[in-house]
Amino acid sequence: MITLRRLFHKLVRLEEVESVISKYLSLKPLGTEVVPITESLGRVLAEDVYSPIDYPPFDRSVVDGFAVRAEDTYGADEESPIKLRIKGSVGVGEAPKIEVGPGEAVEVATGSPIPKGANAVVMIEYTSQLGNELLVYKAVAPGDGVATAASDISAGDLVLRKGIKLGPPEIALLAGLGVSKVKVFRRVRVGIFSTGNEVIRPGEVLSLGKVYDSNTYFLLASLKELGAEPKYVGHLPDDESVVANALRRALNEYDVILTTGGTSAGLGDVMYRVLDSLGKPGVVIHGLRVKPGKPTVFAVVNGRLVVGLPGFPLSCAMVFMKVVRPLIAKLVGTELPSEEVIKARVPYRIKLGGGKAWLVPVSLIKVGNDFVAYPVKLSSGSISALVMAEGYLYVSEGTELIDEGEFVNVNLFSKYLTIPNLVFIGSHDLALWKLLTVSGLIKESKVILVGSLRGWYAVARGEADIAPTHLLDEVSREYNVPYLSKLGLKGKAVIIRGYARRVGLVVAKGNPKGIKGIQDLLRDDVVMVNRVKGSGIRVLTDILLKELANRLGRDFNELIKGINGYTYEVRTHTAVASAIAQGRADVGIAAEVAARMYGLEFIPITEEIIDFLVLKERLSKESVREFINLLKSDLCNEVLSKLPGYRRLGDTGSIIT
Amino acid sequence: MITLRRLFHKLVRLEEVESVISKYLSLKPLGTEVVPITESLGRVLAEDVYSPIDYPPFDRSVVDGFAVRAEDTYGADEESPIKLRIKGSVGVGEAPKIEVGPGEAVEVATGSPIPKGANAVVMIEYTSQLGNELLVYKAVAPGDGVATAASDISAGDLVLRKGIKLGPPEIALLAGLGVSKVKVFRRVRVGIFSTGNEVIRPGEVLSLGKVYDSNTYFLLASLKELGAEPKYVGHLPDDESVVANALRRALNEYDVILTTGGTSAGLGDVMYRVLDSLGKPGVVIHGLRVKPGKPTVFAVVNGRLVVGLPGFPLSCAMVFMKVVRPLIAKLVGTELPSEEVIKARVPYRIKLGGGKAWLVPVSLIKVGNDFVAYPVKLSSGSISALVMAEGYLYVSEGTELIDEGEFVNVNLFSKYLTIPNLVFIGSHDLALWKLLTVSGLIKESKVILVGSLRGWYAVARGEADIAPTHLLDEVSREYNVPYLSKLGLKGKAVIIRGYARRVGLVVAKGNPKGIKGIQDLLRDDVVMVNRVKGSGIRVLTDILLKELANRLGRDFNELIKGINGYTYEVRTHTAVASAIAQGRADVGIAAEVAARMYGLEFIPITEEIIDFLVLKERLSKESVREFINLLKSDLCNEVLSKLPGYRRLGDTGSIIT
Repeated sequence: MITLRRLFHKLVRLEEVESVISKYLSLKPLGTEVVPITESLGRVLAEDVYSPIDYPPFDRSVVDGFAVRAEDTYGADEESPIKLRIKGSVGVGEAPKIEVGPGEAVEVATGSPIPKGANAVVMIEYTSQLGNELLVYKAVAPGDGVATAASDISAGDLVLRKGIKLGPPEIALLAGLGVSKVKVFRRVRVGIFSTGNEVIRPGEVLSLGKVYDSNTYFLLASLKELGAEPKYVGHLPDDESVVANALRRALNEYDVILTTGGTSAGLGDVMYRVLDSLGKPGVVIHGLRVKPGKPTVFAVVNGRLVVGLPGFPLSCAMVFMKVVRPLIAKLVGTELPSEEVIKARVPYRIKLGGGKAWLVPVSLIKVGNDFVAYPVKLSSGSISALVMAEGYLYVSEGTELIDEGEFVNVNLFSKYLTIPNLVFIGSHDLALWKLLTVSGLIKESKVILVGSLRGWYAVARGEADIAPTHLLDEVSREYNVPYLSKLGLKGKAVIIRGYARRVGLVVAKGNPKGIKGIQDLLRDDVVMVNRVKGSGIRVLTDILLKELANRLGRDFNELIKGINGYTYEVRTHTAVASAIAQGRADVGIAAEVAARMYGLEFIPITEEIIDFLVLKERLSKESVREFINLLKSDLCNEVLSKLPGYRRLGDTGSIIT
Repeated sequence: MITLRRLFHKLVRLEEVESVISKYLSLKPLGTEVVPITESLGRVLAEDVYSPIDYPPFDRSVVDGFAVRAEDTYGADEESPIKLRIKGSVGVGEAPKIEVGPGEAVEVATGSPIPKGANAVVMIEYTSQLGNELLVYKAVAPGDGVATAASDISAGDLVLRKGIKLGPPEIALLAGLGVSKVKVFRRVRVGIFSTGNEVIRPGEVLSLGKVYDSNTYFLLASLKELGAEPKYVGHLPDDESVVANALRRALNEYDVILTTGGTSAGLGDVMYRVLDSLGKPGVVIHGLRVKPGKPTVFAVVNGRLVVGLPGFPLSCAMVFMKVVRPLIAKLVGTELPSEEVIKARVPYRIKLGGGKAWLVPVSLIKVGNDFVAYPVKLSSGSISALVMAEGYLYVSEGTELIDEGEFVNVNLFSKYLTIPNLVFIGSHDLALWKLLTVSGLIKESKVILVGSLRGWYAVARGEADIAPTHLLDEVSREYNVPYLSKLGLKGKAVIIRGYARRVGLVVAKGNPKGIKGIQDLLRDDVVMVNRVKGSGIRVLTDILLKELANRLGRDFNELIKGINGYTYEVRTHTAVASAIAQGRADVGIAAEVAARMYGLEFIPITEEIIDFLVLKERLSKESVREFINLLKSDLCNEVLSKLPGYRRLGDTGSIIT
């Protein structure tokens, strides 16, 4: 039996981290090195660069033509050309050996040095030649066609400042000034360890209880982007002396050490004790007042920074981006570009609180001039959140909730915010994904999964172009259409007929419990897996159970109390199938396609209709029309006929009300 | 004698390039390869990725505590805890071997699999233990503390789409799903050649007529950024058979070949003939209707793209960014993020025209809510323009000029636009640079050099916080102050006293022409170098020459006609010194510091006063106050005393009017 560990010490606010660390460690670049300019892309300049030469280094011609004394051409025009004597030529790259006297001209090309005596170049287009005789058809002013020495840069000019990141223009500038090597800040070496008994490497075989390491790969890529030199050092077991030895070695090789996992106050973590034992001052921050990210540990050991990041992927990534990356950026010597912040409103009430700050990844859509920020998965274990989000809310301590329609600040991950042409918000359906992918429409689309009902609200508010919906009306047993009146959208929105998908009971291969119908859910030896409230399947499940209660003359609420697993709720069809495949449940209701995907057995109950809700005014939108045409197309027929349990309807793609 | 070559064929508009090239070449990715995810940062995904597993792969605890049946905890609170029996524990990474029955609890940590039978986790904070007895002080609902399998991602979900660029979140997602290798588009191999007799390598010794290659380095860095695999192949001489052989070899090794220089219709270019001789169809675009960038050649040779870019650096860079990079991006398989475009007004009239489109790099400042776009050096030979600019105007054909105050579209180079705190617009002065650099104020400053007079206008319009100025009034012989009334800024702006700098005649070492004073400019054997109109030194020069004309009883305009080099105008003090050092002129007027920098001799004439013009309302601006304090500081004294010819004044830093 393992004893549960102490709770966290006093937690530190995000804003305080830098000042706490600075007490023990100077957050400055770690030294400099000289690199060839060809290897300097993205490096940070460690010194001011003054130009060693003038640029251009000499007066040069910027056109092809003849170097002349401008005064000699005054009065020249098409009718009365002026005659000059061609004295010779100065090629590009040649030092001029001749001078231009009165009445003389010297042939030059773009880039040729201007010979002494000349102060302008007549473009070749305005001349003609006859042996050594040049006719000039247009007068030039002094300076025409000439770039004088130092007109771009003077010797001694400060051209690049310490601390800038070298990009193509800066590198080209250095090259043009003859600088072939440049002093940059030394790379920051970051050693990364994974920890935790559950963690295995991508590519290995997954067994129950294990998860693939994703944190290491997030950190490796992010640190590379930042211009640091990250390396995965290895996996640390739950053994204090092994961990201590590994970290001691790493402290000699790396400037910063990051570990992931093993810092929660849970079973078997040893990180605290080790970090306190390796050197002074040891652990200086024992946790952060933020969700996700609380179990983050900062230690300073003999002048090196060690950060124990949380093991859950979203926690790890958010804390790294918001807190750790800025610290490492200071060691790299670069200033992180300040995050772009935009105002956006939230589509529904978001509960926060708990006496801490929150980092909430959000997916953005644009409605008119306003942005709307849909919170992406709030689970700290998510690995998809950052791919789906364009930014995050940083909600400081003390905010208990954000109300529907309230405006908040969103920090963007990138300033390249692409606004999708077509926004789906609503129910999750596999055929829709397939259709969008196969047709290529997915490239301009964004799909936000919130369940059918929230999809209706999103359409009503104009946030979604289209809501995929399969809401069953209890009374009429009709899908979707009755909700137009129920939800007050009659006359404002229309329903585009979609397609049918077969749903039913999903059971293990061979149906070991001999399940035949919905009444088997009442058996003591049967455990079900249910769907979350608000999903179409949950509505269907409850209607079926109410009918069963009626038939049996029992109370619905009393009936469901007797169903094992009625409260075991999952979010998707495939999650139902997965629960059965892994033996966590014996039966669940889901689409046939999910059952087939997991090689399970399927007992049909009914066919659901999946329709698409659209505001009338959006019907004229190009991308919406494209989607409706897709529904009517042969491609749609083809996609549906390949998916088990799906079926096209006679009026697929039509406006049915 | 070399004969001048044919003029350009029909020029192609920028918008037409892609469609012309597409006729001969498929602008699609060139193939795929499989790479480990650790080497996939920035690569472009070549296939849709569907999730091979559910994520999380099992129901897991998201807190430290006890897995329970939620129903067992109903009614629990601080006063009346509910008693459960601890049956055992499930560690992180362990497959559960026990089940949770009624009245039972199993210890779990964050990340532990939930044992069968449990549907919630009570956080440890709400429990206490006594041997095997657990007291629960808070009721939980089903699902509390649990992340169900597939709640983040379901097996079979399309998680990443073909064509996206892999960043840290995408790589972490792949890792978390167990994917260790990924199919990406093959890198595009780009071979780069330099051409031109004038071009030498950075690090080599510069002789007259030569310039350092900067284009190659710009292209190498830009192509790396784009995700291509560029390599500098070598320098091509002006020898047709050598060029043909080198290109023939390169066409076997590279997917795209870029050359720079040698494509203007000038002396000695051989590129056209070679490109037409190597394979079909040969040259397909003979030049672009754009400035800079006209002499750009596109060829397709046996299915490979060859682009001859202009040799002048700004032309080369602008054409690459606007036209060539998008073509290569298509081969790389990535879509370039669309350029951010903002509206900005121009501070003064910009002349364009000439029946072509223009690409004009601009430096941006912000005035209230408006952006103002200052054109950066218009010379196509510039290497500093791109470092100084934040974006460029793309002015399409047919626009002859943009008037002062007119709004234009500016394409930004980067979406990370930093707005400086302190904007200087006006005259170029070395001491100002030194002061800003040494004090560190340069980090928040932007300095735009347009000459004293335009600096006054920029202050009047509110674009500049401060204009460095040294305008001499002809009548009063006083610097700057009289212009407050002359330019209508009395009462609106003030002058902050700056410092004095000595100016005089600059001559070669040993003063070989025996120059003693301004009257020597009239000598037949003396060539002068003059400054451009609008500069403070030019105003001084003309005043001195008018006085000389008066003394000699001659007409000023007639007098200057007799001065050799009066029309030879350069833009900076150091350019004057450089012209004398290189023997292009015998004498010029410049600041002492420039003469010393080039080891030249200096004959003092007078002391100029450099002041700083500021709008009254800007005096309260933090950064302006900081600059004024800098002028008054000991640091300023120190900087000035080290610069030859500079001197602090008694009232430096005071408002003198």
